[in-house]
Amino acid sequence: MSSTTAGQVIRCKAAVAWEAGKPLVIEEVEVAPPQAMEVRLKILFTSLCHTDVYFWEAKGQTPLFPRIFGHEAGGIVESIGEGVTDLKPGDHALPVFTGECKECRHCKSEESNMCDLLRINTDRGVMLNDGKSRFSINGQPIYHFVGTSTFSEYTVLHVGSVAKINPAAPLDKVCILSCGISTGLGATLNVAKPKKGSTVAVFGLGAVGLAAAEGARIAGASRIIGVDLNAKRFDEAKKFGVTEFVNPKDHEKPVHEVLAEMTNGGVDRSIECTGSINAMISAFECVHDGWGVAVLVGVPNKDDAFKTHPMNLLNERTIKGTFFGNYKPRSDLPSVVEKYMNKELELEKFITHEVSFSEINKAFEYMLKGEGLRCIIRMDA
Amino acid sequence: MSSTTAGQVIRCKAAVAWEAGKPLVIEEVEVAPPQAMEVRLKILFTSLCHTDVYFWEAKGQTPLFPRIFGHEAGGIVESIGEGVTDLKPGDHALPVFTGECKECRHCKSEESNMCDLLRINTDRGVMLNDGKSRFSINGQPIYHFVGTSTFSEYTVLHVGSVAKINPAAPLDKVCILSCGISTGLGATLNVAKPKKGSTVAVFGLGAVGLAAAEGARIAGASRIIGVDLNAKRFDEAKKFGVTEFVNPKDHEKPVHEVLAEMTNGGVDRSIECTGSINAMISAFECVHDGWGVAVLVGVPNKDDAFKTHPMNLLNERTIKGTFFGNYKPRSDLPSVVEKYMNKELELEKFITHEVSFSEINKAFEYMLKGEGLRCIIRMDA
Repeated sequence: MSSTTAGQVIRCKAAVAWEAGKPLVIEEVEVAPPQAMEVRLKILFTSLCHTDVYFWEAKGQTPLFPRIFGHEAGGIVESIGEGVTDLKPGDHALPVFTGECKECRHCKSEESNMCDLLRINTDRGVMLNDGKSRFSINGQPIYHFVGTSTFSEYTVLHVGSVAKINPAAPLDKVCILSCGISTGLGATLNVAKPKKGSTVAVFGLGAVGLAAAEGARIAGASRIIGVDLNAKRFDEAKKFGVTEFVNPKDHEKPVHEVLAEMTNGGVDRSIECTGSINAMISAFECVHDGWGVAVLVGVPNKDDAFKTHPMNLLNERTIKGTFFGNYKPRSDLPSVVEKYMNKELELEKFITHEVSFSEINKAFEYMLKGEGLRCIIRMDA
Repeated sequence: MSSTTAGQVIRCKAAVAWEAGKPLVIEEVEVAPPQAMEVRLKILFTSLCHTDVYFWEAKGQTPLFPRIFGHEAGGIVESIGEGVTDLKPGDHALPVFTGECKECRHCKSEESNMCDLLRINTDRGVMLNDGKSRFSINGQPIYHFVGTSTFSEYTVLHVGSVAKINPAAPLDKVCILSCGISTGLGATLNVAKPKKGSTVAVFGLGAVGLAAAEGARIAGASRIIGVDLNAKRFDEAKKFGVTEFVNPKDHEKPVHEVLAEMTNGGVDRSIECTGSINAMISAFECVHDGWGVAVLVGVPNKDDAFKTHPMNLLNERTIKGTFFGNYKPRSDLPSVVEKYMNKELELEKFITHEVSFSEINKAFEYMLKGEGLRCIIRMDA
């Protein structure tokens, strides 16, 4: 197929958000060929993540419409632009909302994945190369979203935002590794690094928090304590290795004290996946002195302040933030896919819904109602 | 000598603090024999640390007098109590203000040195075994200080507060490893762990901060930036590897911005050795996103709040607190002594004064005037 479409504009279906908060409309769009250092990807499966909904609602952000959302997906390279050497048509790949140029200080650092060139930018709706969109309808440009725009049968990405993966991996499963699941999993495996037999608290039992719990299960934690204001989440959480549940609403004392009492002084590791500033502070204050490590994942509000008594730090506690689970997208995602392939990592339990592309608005409804974890959208149906 | 004094009360000289803030008085004291799990040490050299002065001034703490201060020292085991197996008369040792029982969760953790049994306790003036003092004058008990009380020719310690060291090490030099120098050195080598070629900021250029800089020098940092409000300290700091100096008073913008401009976005590691809450926040905010690590050493005021925007954390920065440089006193101090013996660590440059025991109040005067770094007090003179 690449031989017939390479270099040509492709006409295909995409789900276009014309206005903030209004249902997406399946439209025929034109997708321009990839330019230098770009890749055109045929999307086979995509899934919906909170970040799509957040920017679609556009409450408090600069609205940028019309726009094609979507950033968790799996696809096959259709064609490549000039200068692309490590991908070729037919390769299986995951698009990623934050890239890896392999040239900047962050990419060259062993410790960082916050690429200077391709770090997530939610305000930019165009390609880096020429500042233009590759999507249009009758000549009207449609904006990109975080360099991925996977709610389209074809999309164009910077090569640094495309992770080549094992072609044997089922794309309808591993597509969810593009964002939320890797974020939670990596927060535990790459940053919190609990030892075998340790006690881990996870704040927030949505998809990211459950992926953090899955990481703790894989690491061999003996106690995984889920903290959430919604008691209904506990049953589902058990599948992810959560052994105990704390609902802050059930206690008069602060949740960090409840956790300290349950664990003889504090948990070994905690992972905060809600973005609530109070949960962040509790997640820090609930770790044991001497060795406790708290990892922050959830994104806070603009005006929040993290506040604690400095003695909490001086008593040999550590607090670290993470972004996309500290995974470098191109270098590290292939190995996360392998963890699924060798059955170390379970992905099926995250996938609670599936819809056809024409029903994409149903996926938004599920998420807005808080139903389920991940909804897979099949592009071919 | 142990054969003649073991099991006997020893009469010897000690510098007694009878009242807060009043000059010490050299008195003849009686030192009782060590009880179970205790050791009696003949002190040869002691030095003065800020913490002695702080509790001697007793501003804001519960005053506990009469008391024998002193916690940085080197000595020789005179006799041992029942159950002591890893020390014998004649062993060379450093007393330490915080102990290592080797039995509790902290001692068994690889990551912590905050022993549950023997963690520093500044309010306790007696021995753990019987809740009594081993010092007396005509039957009046004299309180101990942090389990060490080294301003005495003989002192009694819990065995967990005594680090046995290489008998070839000169006690008049390595005695300063009992507290401040190890605290700063370990903050860098054990906690901040800068890589070769990295950039390290040190806040506060007193003895602890300079020891942190010495650690950065040993680790091979290529830039060591000293931050202090006192410009006079820079000349001395050069001896400790400090390559650049920033006085926050010389700049209108916040010091973390000054450091970010000097270093293309932030330092790789920072170590806070002042205890000022503003310095703590600056030390955190001046580290580079993606990989920066800030280490807090200085002890804050009771009512201080550490406050920062959580995005500073989420951008992959880390903040950690440390206590006594994360060294386990008995397990780790012998190897710090070896670093001095093999000339990796330089101690002479920390020793700026020397006085005889009878002149001990001079050491207090030097410190109160901010003169020099460490004053060695010779017990035999």
